[in-house]
Amino acid sequence: MTTAVDRVRAAYARITQVDRPEVWIALRPQADTESDAAAVDAKVAAGDRLPLAGTVLAVKGNIDVAGLPTTAGCPAYAYEPDTDAPAVARLKAAGAVVLGTTNLDQFATGLVGTRSPYGAVRNALSPEHVSGGSSSGSAVAVALGIADIALGTDTAGSGRVPAAFNGIVGLKPTFGLIPTEGVVPACASLDCVTVFARTLSEAEQAMSLMAAPSGRALSAPAPRAPGPWRIAVPELGQLGRLDPGWAEAFEAAAQRLSDAGAELLPVDLAPFTEAAAMLYEGAFVAERYTAVGAFIDAHPGSPDLDPTVAGIISGAGDIPAHQLYADQQRLASLRVRALATLGDADALLLPTAPGHPTLTEVAADPLGVNARLGRFTNSTNLFDLAAVAVPAGDVNGLPFGVMLIGPAFTDERLARIAGLLDNPPLRLAVIGAHLSGQPLNGQLLAVGGRLVRTTTTARAYRLYALDTLPPKPGLVRVGEDGDTIEAEVWQLPAEGLGVFLAALPRPMALGSVELADGSFVTGFLCEPQAVEGAREITSYGSWRAYLAALPRP
Amino acid sequence: MTTAVDRVRAAYARITQVDRPEVWIALRPQADTESDAAAVDAKVAAGDRLPLAGTVLAVKGNIDVAGLPTTAGCPAYAYEPDTDAPAVARLKAAGAVVLGTTNLDQFATGLVGTRSPYGAVRNALSPEHVSGGSSSGSAVAVALGIADIALGTDTAGSGRVPAAFNGIVGLKPTFGLIPTEGVVPACASLDCVTVFARTLSEAEQAMSLMAAPSGRALSAPAPRAPGPWRIAVPELGQLGRLDPGWAEAFEAAAQRLSDAGAELLPVDLAPFTEAAAMLYEGAFVAERYTAVGAFIDAHPGSPDLDPTVAGIISGAGDIPAHQLYADQQRLASLRVRALATLGDADALLLPTAPGHPTLTEVAADPLGVNARLGRFTNSTNLFDLAAVAVPAGDVNGLPFGVMLIGPAFTDERLARIAGLLDNPPLRLAVIGAHLSGQPLNGQLLAVGGRLVRTTTTARAYRLYALDTLPPKPGLVRVGEDGDTIEAEVWQLPAEGLGVFLAALPRPMALGSVELADGSFVTGFLCEPQAVEGAREITSYGSWRAYLAALPRP
Repeated sequence: MTTAVDRVRAAYARITQVDRPEVWIALRPQADTESDAAAVDAKVAAGDRLPLAGTVLAVKGNIDVAGLPTTAGCPAYAYEPDTDAPAVARLKAAGAVVLGTTNLDQFATGLVGTRSPYGAVRNALSPEHVSGGSSSGSAVAVALGIADIALGTDTAGSGRVPAAFNGIVGLKPTFGLIPTEGVVPACASLDCVTVFARTLSEAEQAMSLMAAPSGRALSAPAPRAPGPWRIAVPELGQLGRLDPGWAEAFEAAAQRLSDAGAELLPVDLAPFTEAAAMLYEGAFVAERYTAVGAFIDAHPGSPDLDPTVAGIISGAGDIPAHQLYADQQRLASLRVRALATLGDADALLLPTAPGHPTLTEVAADPLGVNARLGRFTNSTNLFDLAAVAVPAGDVNGLPFGVMLIGPAFTDERLARIAGLLDNPPLRLAVIGAHLSGQPLNGQLLAVGGRLVRTTTTARAYRLYALDTLPPKPGLVRVGEDGDTIEAEVWQLPAEGLGVFLAALPRPMALGSVELADGSFVTGFLCEPQAVEGAREITSYGSWRAYLAALPRP
Repeated sequence: MTTAVDRVRAAYARITQVDRPEVWIALRPQADTESDAAAVDAKVAAGDRLPLAGTVLAVKGNIDVAGLPTTAGCPAYAYEPDTDAPAVARLKAAGAVVLGTTNLDQFATGLVGTRSPYGAVRNALSPEHVSGGSSSGSAVAVALGIADIALGTDTAGSGRVPAAFNGIVGLKPTFGLIPTEGVVPACASLDCVTVFARTLSEAEQAMSLMAAPSGRALSAPAPRAPGPWRIAVPELGQLGRLDPGWAEAFEAAAQRLSDAGAELLPVDLAPFTEAAAMLYEGAFVAERYTAVGAFIDAHPGSPDLDPTVAGIISGAGDIPAHQLYADQQRLASLRVRALATLGDADALLLPTAPGHPTLTEVAADPLGVNARLGRFTNSTNLFDLAAVAVPAGDVNGLPFGVMLIGPAFTDERLARIAGLLDNPPLRLAVIGAHLSGQPLNGQLLAVGGRLVRTTTTARAYRLYALDTLPPKPGLVRVGEDGDTIEAEVWQLPAEGLGVFLAALPRPMALGSVELADGSFVTGFLCEPQAVEGAREITSYGSWRAYLAALPRP
């Protein structure tokens, strides 16, 4: 059994190993976190039920953690909160241990992860690429396996773009579901606390523990009309310029939802992209001045201020109120159009971002590159929608991510739909006791298996009768001296294949088996020792033929 | 790509193979179903989106399928419907192919699966045990892998008890969610159409396709208070006599929900069991007389009538209306008590049945054994609740099942909670390129892995440096001549382990590896051919030590 102390120690070992100091603004001393972890272990030993016992948590630097400075990415702005933000307090009460606060685009203003005097946060998988922001350090801490879960915030996409760039899950809950007390505001009427995790289920569990029993939070979601999931998918032409390979990856994600039984619906993306453009170009940015404008204006030229961020926010002080009224009216009408085009769709599928820039590209055009990144995320909070960002494959060796966006309070439903992208059915070639009609065939059915086809291996294998109970054959690849062996290919849910493997006894093994058509599929092999002294039965061509030729007992 | 025709052919092959003729009342000729399947294939080829294309469907014999007799398990009662029941029609429209109608406890009166002139339906896994009823044939057809999904009905547990006994999933939806037109009524005010499948996701997909856009169906579920899932779990003392090992299996299921983060709450089961006893002992059984009493009274002693069923229903003709009023009043007050004790729990966890009788035991005491089986299921429809029945392990080699029962219209939520029982985290021992800090470690993180501990294998292995890119070691079990090798044990979600295995390239393999403490865990092995001519590096004791000793390039 892993203790909370073990898990915390492993986190520090990993911090040393990955050598990404820019992830952290305030990393707690290991002795302090180990002491917290020991307290969690003691509670568990005393019988307390702690759903997050030992979960290692990182917190974005604009969220209060008692005992650590809240910086919002600006050393001069720092204050020492007396109490944890409610979101943090609830996770700690459930047994999570806070490792420290993480780096961010200053004042949560940016989608790049480079706008910080604490250093640009490099991507978890490709250090020359940006991590995405503004919740940069939190996302990278999770993606690198340091933290199990991390808190971010999301006003214009800050809880989703870094999830996509680092290949993890980011939940952007319905506005108001998670309290934002103890969070440095960016745009107070839009800000949401978000969660990063490597799996949907971990992220959802944290979200359910943080949700606030407010009047709004207890609103039920709108009832949905019956039928398969209905997913609104825009035409590629409406997505604008995407990085090479991203259009294909997006279409593949839509196809996976369709293959899983979802109905794909057309949608007009125009109101979403028009609203997105308003977030930085229009008057809404003035809300950032309301939050920290006076502070910024009082520290002109300070090295603690990121010049890009300071320029954006300071400039917003001059926006007249009549422009805000006009923009609010325009937004209201765009929202009506957006909801109308969504119709009765359960979710809107979008790429999380249009592309993934390098640190160099951001440095060359800090405003332009950043603005492009928010094309698909900026409108979500303006329209009071919920979103789930999940990985959806790789393009050119880097993660590609998509979002499922839906009405307020459909958070759980969006996560369920996103789960369909998680879970492609997998294949398994069986050659012996798991063939149809053989004694262990029921094990495949029990984990959701379905026969796809009967074929043979490539002409490269030998078959042996192993000394097992029930009798099983051992398949050994020998190359040119081999022959073909009858095989059935079964389709299994991913978790079914995992459960099947976990129950596999010695000396059986699963690896990659070549079929007659030259394709490779996961299939049965065995340990080398098992075939020593075993009878070779390759000439029968199949396990069934060998059994049929045995003398009847 | 498997076609619908392929899948239908495989179903008939399996019917022959398993030799369970009592499963069917009207099995369609293969030529007819192949023709239907060919039409589905043609639609798919023409670009139609059919979420169930080629899904093989079995339909309980009390649900109308155009062209087949609706018997309700009684040959003399049979009629030939002109049209499919809406539930069937919706699945067919989505691409499902109906294989035929299945055997049942006559007039859906029974939980055993033996009350049919078409023969007693034997359990899928143990022919001397009952299949459970009344949806006996449907459950066995799915459990044996003949049908992908099957329709049942549930008044007192008929869609859940057979799921539990045959190790599959049974969804008992909220009353009114699926239309019951074209279904022979048992108790019309309680009857629900149900779905059986081998996986939750297949069952849920079918359910979403059948749901009816009625006023009731569009009601939203009651909003839930935030926090972890809250599961009401009765004390063992309230469950009454269970079969040997079932109490332990039930407690293990509760523990798995707790381990997955759910909060377990106490509950008073008394109102549920009191209501359950009323279903056959009280006046409610008169509704069965309303449905088919006149038919039964008109066929005294007919060999087409099951004597037990005929006796129950015929006897209900004498129940006076004043008793029904009294029972309805009593039920209303029990329902208030039941909802009060559930409080804000998301679900009530119960064993699906208290035990699993043999055919011989049922024959010896047809009424007593049957009544016992409904102890936990009978109250669900009386209280207007929804339920999901799922497998939860084995006891003495036979499936054990539990139910999650919750308020009307929480069907989706119950399925999500049930999914937690599906999905235990699994373990994987890594010894080479997947160790912490090694180049492929990120693959473990990407599928949700977490380091549990560092240890070594048992003293029974040899290690070889394989000719792979990146360099990897091959672990070979040799027994007494072996040594210990450093290993890290990682925890992965079941689907993560499946995805990891599916991506594993030759010559690597996963099998069962013995650790220093004598336990076995899924771990890395390799194909025999890979170690031929490879350098043995056992003496280093670990892949990391071997790498450290290599000359720097």
